[in-house]
Amino acid sequence: MVLDNIGLLVTNDPMLDRGLLGVIRDASVVFDGETVVSVGAAGQTADERVDAAGRCVIPGFVDSHTHLVFAGDRADEFAARMAGASYTAGGIGVTTAATRDSSDNELRALALARLSEARRAGITTIEIKSGYGLTVEDEARIVRLAGELTPETTFLGAHLVPAEFAGRADDYVDLVCGPMLAACAPHSRWIDAFCEIGAFDVDQCRAVLRAGRAAGLVGRLHANQLGFGPGVQLAVEEDCASADHCTYLSDDDIGALVSGNTIATFLPAADFSTRQPYADGRRAVGAGVEIALATNCNPGSSYTTSMSFCIALAVRDMHLTIEEAVYAATAGGARALRRDDIGRIAPGRRADLVVLDAPSYSHLVYRPGVPLIKTTFVGGAVAC
Amino acid sequence: MVLDNIGLLVTNDPMLDRGLLGVIRDASVVFDGETVVSVGAAGQTADERVDAAGRCVIPGFVDSHTHLVFAGDRADEFAARMAGASYTAGGIGVTTAATRDSSDNELRALALARLSEARRAGITTIEIKSGYGLTVEDEARIVRLAGELTPETTFLGAHLVPAEFAGRADDYVDLVCGPMLAACAPHSRWIDAFCEIGAFDVDQCRAVLRAGRAAGLVGRLHANQLGFGPGVQLAVEEDCASADHCTYLSDDDIGALVSGNTIATFLPAADFSTRQPYADGRRAVGAGVEIALATNCNPGSSYTTSMSFCIALAVRDMHLTIEEAVYAATAGGARALRRDDIGRIAPGRRADLVVLDAPSYSHLVYRPGVPLIKTTFVGGAVAC
Repeated sequence: MVLDNIGLLVTNDPMLDRGLLGVIRDASVVFDGETVVSVGAAGQTADERVDAAGRCVIPGFVDSHTHLVFAGDRADEFAARMAGASYTAGGIGVTTAATRDSSDNELRALALARLSEARRAGITTIEIKSGYGLTVEDEARIVRLAGELTPETTFLGAHLVPAEFAGRADDYVDLVCGPMLAACAPHSRWIDAFCEIGAFDVDQCRAVLRAGRAAGLVGRLHANQLGFGPGVQLAVEEDCASADHCTYLSDDDIGALVSGNTIATFLPAADFSTRQPYADGRRAVGAGVEIALATNCNPGSSYTTSMSFCIALAVRDMHLTIEEAVYAATAGGARALRRDDIGRIAPGRRADLVVLDAPSYSHLVYRPGVPLIKTTFVGGAVAC
Repeated sequence: MVLDNIGLLVTNDPMLDRGLLGVIRDASVVFDGETVVSVGAAGQTADERVDAAGRCVIPGFVDSHTHLVFAGDRADEFAARMAGASYTAGGIGVTTAATRDSSDNELRALALARLSEARRAGITTIEIKSGYGLTVEDEARIVRLAGELTPETTFLGAHLVPAEFAGRADDYVDLVCGPMLAACAPHSRWIDAFCEIGAFDVDQCRAVLRAGRAAGLVGRLHANQLGFGPGVQLAVEEDCASADHCTYLSDDDIGALVSGNTIATFLPAADFSTRQPYADGRRAVGAGVEIALATNCNPGSSYTTSMSFCIALAVRDMHLTIEEAVYAATAGGARALRRDDIGRIAPGRRADLVVLDAPSYSHLVYRPGVPLIKTTFVGGAVAC
């Protein structure tokens, strides 16, 4: 198949030497099944032709941080926060109770609806974490359900100490590192923990990451969301693929990120929804930190699937350029998932791409709040 | 027709004594043609039934400030501004050149596409200004084209001094108040001017407002967008329906608004897109100012039709409550257009309403960037 008559094509291909986004005007892309086989000028031919009518085409968004499998709604908590209450990690317990009370089929239906919404938002690859079960059985079923939707599943048993372990956090960490990990590892690619005051401390997080690694998982870490802390440097030390949030970054944190192999994943929609200050993306990029943008879709602190919204915030409030933000939401996400088959439109890569109802990717920021995703191709097929 | 099985109905009806939004749970609304005839519990009957399936229904958004008729794109100017350039009124000239060069049919097609987008965003009443013609002939055709789309047309000849009048602003104001007004008044309900350094001063704006009033139009004014100034107090003195932007409000401005009959219309998407500070909506509402929210859809400073985005910004960054923001985008907009047939769901009012793909209006803020407009009814008919 050929997607032809593309007015502006973002490839993210550095081989083209056409800026960060590897932009080609008047282009076409040929796929064979799930894979791109040719990127070139408009007018390439194939057995089937789709006309982009001069629109802009970009790589599909890679959303490397979501919590998509949950039940319940925390709109009231959100409204109270907007009226002045502060955000703490504690609300996770509310979602955990609702999730435990839901059947597999209920959770499956809810997560599928959110995945459809994410596809309509242009997200072609999505990471999904557990973390609203917090028992061996519930965590295992959440990663199993997540695995029905994506290969990028993350075991986040260390999301919050559940009420039944109050005052016994270390006992809970032992459970996470032992039987819970054993039950979840077969369904998971990643191990994650929430390193924050009110959640888990640096030693507990290190124990979780190391146990996960011993079970064949690769680390990622919730770090420095609500204040400065040891999370980012721990993530780098433990060779995590990503340190997520990074709202508060010290000079030492930035130095660690630059020297290590860990991507800084910014989640500006969470800063929006918790009224935190936005991360200083400009400073991080200026220092040479590799970054990603993700939605952090979850019912407490960031209930959005709109990567476009995240990109707009990243430009307006994190002072990234539009190009940097689009790159971070596509190629950056791929790096944060240590994937080299996605995040770029080039021969041999997956045919994951998005037709925008706009002549330029700039419109993702220039037209904030406007749904601009016209068609999402996942593995060469129209997903919505 | 009955819209039944509404989980949460926002009426904005103060007679119900159910908070600012006049909320009813498990409701139904009966329309006869364009008009609501009954609001009550779920299960009312009529010849035709639409099932809201437990969703939230709100009054249609009333967008009291847009510049929908224009040609051209200023994405590059926007990108430069996001990279550090500052916003001035001067870019209006770029759009004016493109608009003058376009045929009626080209402008009509562009404006219609934007109107469709606005309907999909839940906007049921829209005000449209001229202001990208700046000649007698071009201003007249813009208000005429606007009048094909809405009764809420505004003559904004005093948008910017066009290049051909450089250094002769007073001569241009004479043209606006004379032949241009004469050509535009038959197609216009409102008269507007841009009171700002770089645009028109207070005496020029007063002359325009008074000339408009003498021609049967009612005033509204762009005021205090880029700094403190005399605009807001002028708007109140001249009994304008609305002072728009109000990003910078002095204590005297607030006092004038409280004592007068002029609505303060906030345009937070413009503050977003020009990286201005957000207006202090909390302070204004706390002082007793009546407010509206509008999109300010235009190619320079706010190219969005998303009232949901404006509501989210108004809560997050102007510190309105969710209820205040939703009210301002519906009943507030109606007040800013001096209309009492819209902005509320009550017997005798127009059947302009929106079914949200959400259980509560709170989701407009709780789920930022997510398109939540399921169905828009305009005058009892499904518009999208």
